[in-house]
Amino acid sequence: MAKDVMSESELYKFLGKYGIKTPECKSVGLDEKISFSKFPAVIKIQSPKVVHKSDVGGVILHLNSNEDLENGRRQIIENLKKHNITLDSNDGFIITQMVFGEELYVGSVEDATFGNVILFGKGGIYLELYKDVCYIEANARKDEIKRAIATTKIGELFHGFRGFDYKEEWAINLIESVQKMLKENNIKELDINPLKLTKDGLIAVDARILKGDSTYKEDNREKKRPDFLDNKRVVIVGANTEKGKTGYTIARNARSFEGELFYVNAKGGELFGKKLYKSVNDIEGDIDTAVIVVAAKFVIPTIHDLVKKNLKNLIIITAGFKEAGNEKDELEIARLGKEHNFNIMGPNCLGFYEDSKKLNITFGTGEVHSGDLAFISQSGAVLASLMDRAAELNIGFSHLFSIGNAADLRAVDLIPMLDSAKTCKAITIYIEGAARGRSLCESIRNCKKPIYLFKAAKSEAAKKAAFSHTGNLSGNYAMFHGIMKSLGVHVVETLDSLIFAPLFKDVKNIVVITNAGGPGTVLTDAISNAGKNLYELNASQIAELDKALPPMWSHNNPIDVIGDALPDRYEHALKIADKFDNIDLIYMLITPQDMTDALGTVKILKQHNFKHKVVPILLGGENMREARKFCLDNDILFFASIAQACEFLPQS
Amino acid sequence: MAKDVMSESELYKFLGKYGIKTPECKSVGLDEKISFSKFPAVIKIQSPKVVHKSDVGGVILHLNSNEDLENGRRQIIENLKKHNITLDSNDGFIITQMVFGEELYVGSVEDATFGNVILFGKGGIYLELYKDVCYIEANARKDEIKRAIATTKIGELFHGFRGFDYKEEWAINLIESVQKMLKENNIKELDINPLKLTKDGLIAVDARILKGDSTYKEDNREKKRPDFLDNKRVVIVGANTEKGKTGYTIARNARSFEGELFYVNAKGGELFGKKLYKSVNDIEGDIDTAVIVVAAKFVIPTIHDLVKKNLKNLIIITAGFKEAGNEKDELEIARLGKEHNFNIMGPNCLGFYEDSKKLNITFGTGEVHSGDLAFISQSGAVLASLMDRAAELNIGFSHLFSIGNAADLRAVDLIPMLDSAKTCKAITIYIEGAARGRSLCESIRNCKKPIYLFKAAKSEAAKKAAFSHTGNLSGNYAMFHGIMKSLGVHVVETLDSLIFAPLFKDVKNIVVITNAGGPGTVLTDAISNAGKNLYELNASQIAELDKALPPMWSHNNPIDVIGDALPDRYEHALKIADKFDNIDLIYMLITPQDMTDALGTVKILKQHNFKHKVVPILLGGENMREARKFCLDNDILFFASIAQACEFLPQS
Repeated sequence: MAKDVMSESELYKFLGKYGIKTPECKSVGLDEKISFSKFPAVIKIQSPKVVHKSDVGGVILHLNSNEDLENGRRQIIENLKKHNITLDSNDGFIITQMVFGEELYVGSVEDATFGNVILFGKGGIYLELYKDVCYIEANARKDEIKRAIATTKIGELFHGFRGFDYKEEWAINLIESVQKMLKENNIKELDINPLKLTKDGLIAVDARILKGDSTYKEDNREKKRPDFLDNKRVVIVGANTEKGKTGYTIARNARSFEGELFYVNAKGGELFGKKLYKSVNDIEGDIDTAVIVVAAKFVIPTIHDLVKKNLKNLIIITAGFKEAGNEKDELEIARLGKEHNFNIMGPNCLGFYEDSKKLNITFGTGEVHSGDLAFISQSGAVLASLMDRAAELNIGFSHLFSIGNAADLRAVDLIPMLDSAKTCKAITIYIEGAARGRSLCESIRNCKKPIYLFKAAKSEAAKKAAFSHTGNLSGNYAMFHGIMKSLGVHVVETLDSLIFAPLFKDVKNIVVITNAGGPGTVLTDAISNAGKNLYELNASQIAELDKALPPMWSHNNPIDVIGDALPDRYEHALKIADKFDNIDLIYMLITPQDMTDALGTVKILKQHNFKHKVVPILLGGENMREARKFCLDNDILFFASIAQACEFLPQS
Repeated sequence: MAKDVMSESELYKFLGKYGIKTPECKSVGLDEKISFSKFPAVIKIQSPKVVHKSDVGGVILHLNSNEDLENGRRQIIENLKKHNITLDSNDGFIITQMVFGEELYVGSVEDATFGNVILFGKGGIYLELYKDVCYIEANARKDEIKRAIATTKIGELFHGFRGFDYKEEWAINLIESVQKMLKENNIKELDINPLKLTKDGLIAVDARILKGDSTYKEDNREKKRPDFLDNKRVVIVGANTEKGKTGYTIARNARSFEGELFYVNAKGGELFGKKLYKSVNDIEGDIDTAVIVVAAKFVIPTIHDLVKKNLKNLIIITAGFKEAGNEKDELEIARLGKEHNFNIMGPNCLGFYEDSKKLNITFGTGEVHSGDLAFISQSGAVLASLMDRAAELNIGFSHLFSIGNAADLRAVDLIPMLDSAKTCKAITIYIEGAARGRSLCESIRNCKKPIYLFKAAKSEAAKKAAFSHTGNLSGNYAMFHGIMKSLGVHVVETLDSLIFAPLFKDVKNIVVITNAGGPGTVLTDAISNAGKNLYELNASQIAELDKALPPMWSHNNPIDVIGDALPDRYEHALKIADKFDNIDLIYMLITPQDMTDALGTVKILKQHNFKHKVVPILLGGENMREARKFCLDNDILFFASIAQACEFLPQS
């Protein structure tokens, strides 16, 4: 790896080539006449004999004329003499204009996941202190750059903060120049700090460039592999007659498939009224899709049989590969996929679900409801937990993908497929360690559907834990988060948000009906904090509520129906609120007070078909048990705390 | 209100009086010889004829000698001539040393809740952009000032950031000078921005002082009122024989009281085998404590009867006062309390509970467990919800206070009583709008027990809601939060944290036992994010676990017992982990996988008495219902999501 560090004047020239402004600067000899025109200026010694210029009086600041500069030069020569440094004809001086302005920063690093990544934000010593920077992928488009800048606080400087007339275009042009520079040169690291924001634009004052060949490399995955969502003939290798075994659960779940389904087990026999083939070879004709549940050592031999059947898609449930230290077999499986042009999901995964064909080859124990959300998970257990939670709350899915060890297929490959899938309206992703980051950005950039994402292994302790269970290396979370935000991804901060944030994605205006002011206030804070709006009641709505509610009601949203509210009062308020236009959600907040009938109140939701989404928040414990059970038994989505009801609303 | 704005040189002199450094500065006439010694310097016109100095060339920067200063003065005179400004002997110039350093800020505002409050933090334009400031109460002690500074990012500058040798003492001394200045002068607003941080200390460059008489005023509450926790003879006025009525519930709950209990109802008769007195006057002897549940209009007449009985404590459950627009009667009640020297809790409150005397005069419907946490709530419904949740999870209380409209008693008055109460180990407070802020600070400052606090009505929308239900005005949340932090209060961010944060207050080192790597990683992130520590397993602990667990276990904390773990495997791991010293908590994370027996796994907690606190986290839905029910039925504290299990851990 070649390294190279440029001198100040070389740097200024190099930056100038990319249209990046630098301060006026001039080299002068030991006694030539000085003619400089940008003041105040600095004069500095330029000599291989002097390393730490300031320490030997080799820098003089705040000079306002050529006479001052010449005096300054004389002063430096004298200062150096005191340090026993005598200059000769190889030495000289550099004069630089002093630039005053806000200290910003632009730089780049080479990241293992994403390759070259640009950082832009507050500079000077505050770069480190405030970390007010955004991250921009090397191929980011203008809209991504703008979105990235908008995540920084200093971004406000470009939007009229305190009447400043700094143009956002300056920052965008600069970042695009850096993108170009990174493409045309081998640059490992770039640091322009400070980058001064002045009324004449951005000026790079100090810069450092570390040249070197890129070590970033993406495994190339051919785009020509078959369509993973085209499954007509499916075989389950390892279908098992013993209840409790994974091969049993998958075979059972798969029965609803609307295409042709085959079971294979070396023992032969019958399962769910279907023949158990002793070998894949015994099945006539081609196989689109195979699910492997056999022991790890049988996986590769099974694949050899399957490729003879023109296999398109392979789902390996079996564990015992990279995550267990057996990387060799996993690489061989990946190699076979490449060689024989089939997709691989897994190994060590929970399976796959496609709603439109009722193809459920997961070993989740519960049912999956129909829906329009596709979920891609790098953890089978996270998927299983959320499937379980979703089933109970009647939240449905269009697709479920458990990518396991991701020997082949990852989110980056699945996103384009889902973007074309009609039944999918939004994509939600749980990720621990990303690979092929540049391609992932490209997949997301081209995807027209909203994407929600949770990234695990943010902390050092968790990176260690993640590595121990998947062998995946997790990178810098701030960078990952920043790049995803710049791409318009909704990054969520809790697991539950993976299913709730897409479900509530269109919520802007909220009405709250409550039997208590305090919790109503807390909910209002949470809604405001999430950037959502408490719908403002108009005079006629207030008048209508006045007729239905006791005089003490809040006359405001939250609609406080007062502590002694029985179900009928909630019902009156709900019916009126349901008529409001321009609202997206009604939270029905119930606290256990003296007269409260929580069960009776949630029953209203079964008795009426409300036009708007109505979601109960059942605060408390003991006194809410019956009402919560009723909701669960009747597929009514509810929350048990205000925190839970709002954690997914901010889609950062 | 007198207003007064000082000139630059007056200001410098005033600040100097309080030991606050200002730049070297000198006034000079139109043609007197200049002799200044601190360079670079600035020369500015000082004339009533010139308002916007820079606009007319009235300021020249970066001057390095007296000769330069004289040239600068000449230049300004010429610049002004071009703007048709001719100077005369009343005009002059001011020369100031240019100061280079980090731009900080110190200032003060007068706040309705706290009186004078000092702000300290990052200055310049970044004051507004980063809001990296802390808030310091006028009487804050040195330790509070230090704690406040530590909440800012720029606080790091005083702790060796980048090798800087800036002393924290400089900042503390400066803030103490401002405290002194505020005490000795009538100052409404102070702004020192920038306050330059240089190697020679903090130097106030620009300052603005707005003088004026303070409008801050606290209602004086006599400290000599009786001890609210001294209750021997208690009467319930409005005890009711009709089930479902508040007067019935309170009379029922109060039966466990270990002192003397009387019921009063104008109708007479009997309740729970006790006489219903028709009037307070019929009871012989004095009454310590009265609980009023009668209609609003009877409250004041009842008080007149009660004061004849040497009333010490009055709890008014009845609503219909300030919150309903009836401020007059509430003020009269407060006046009576002052006149006759009794404490008032309420009106419009849920009541009071004191565990040591089994005195339960709340209208909560469930039982209250014994514990060592005192809860003061400004919302009855918040208290009721958390009592309900606590009852279900076997969390106990030493005291419960519902302060309602707070006509008299508030947290500020209750904290000192609780600090002396033997059965209380920690205090948790739900507050919407604070009053008597300076006294509140003093109460907290003197309290030796840990205090947890949730503040509602942070957002503008919520302030409106809170005002509508209690008539309380809520101030600036950032200021409230900052002052509480400086006082060492643990400010929590969710309602549930009010009961969980004190319960988990001593947790530092955590062990996680999980059947899945992904959720284990997410939990690890949440634990790290909360500033807690994943306990590191040592070699002998790993060896012991190796014997009990399958070879694939994680060999690390989280202890991943692998997806097919049955209860026995959790049990082995738990028994081993329970032997670890220096751990404070074991989270038992259970996800619904193929073989998972969540119910069987939580049953372990009933079968063994573990030395350490073991808390299950039951991720999922349908498949976790039985296990969750088992926990609820058996008083086992559990959580249903990782977010819920960790939201209270960071005690900011």
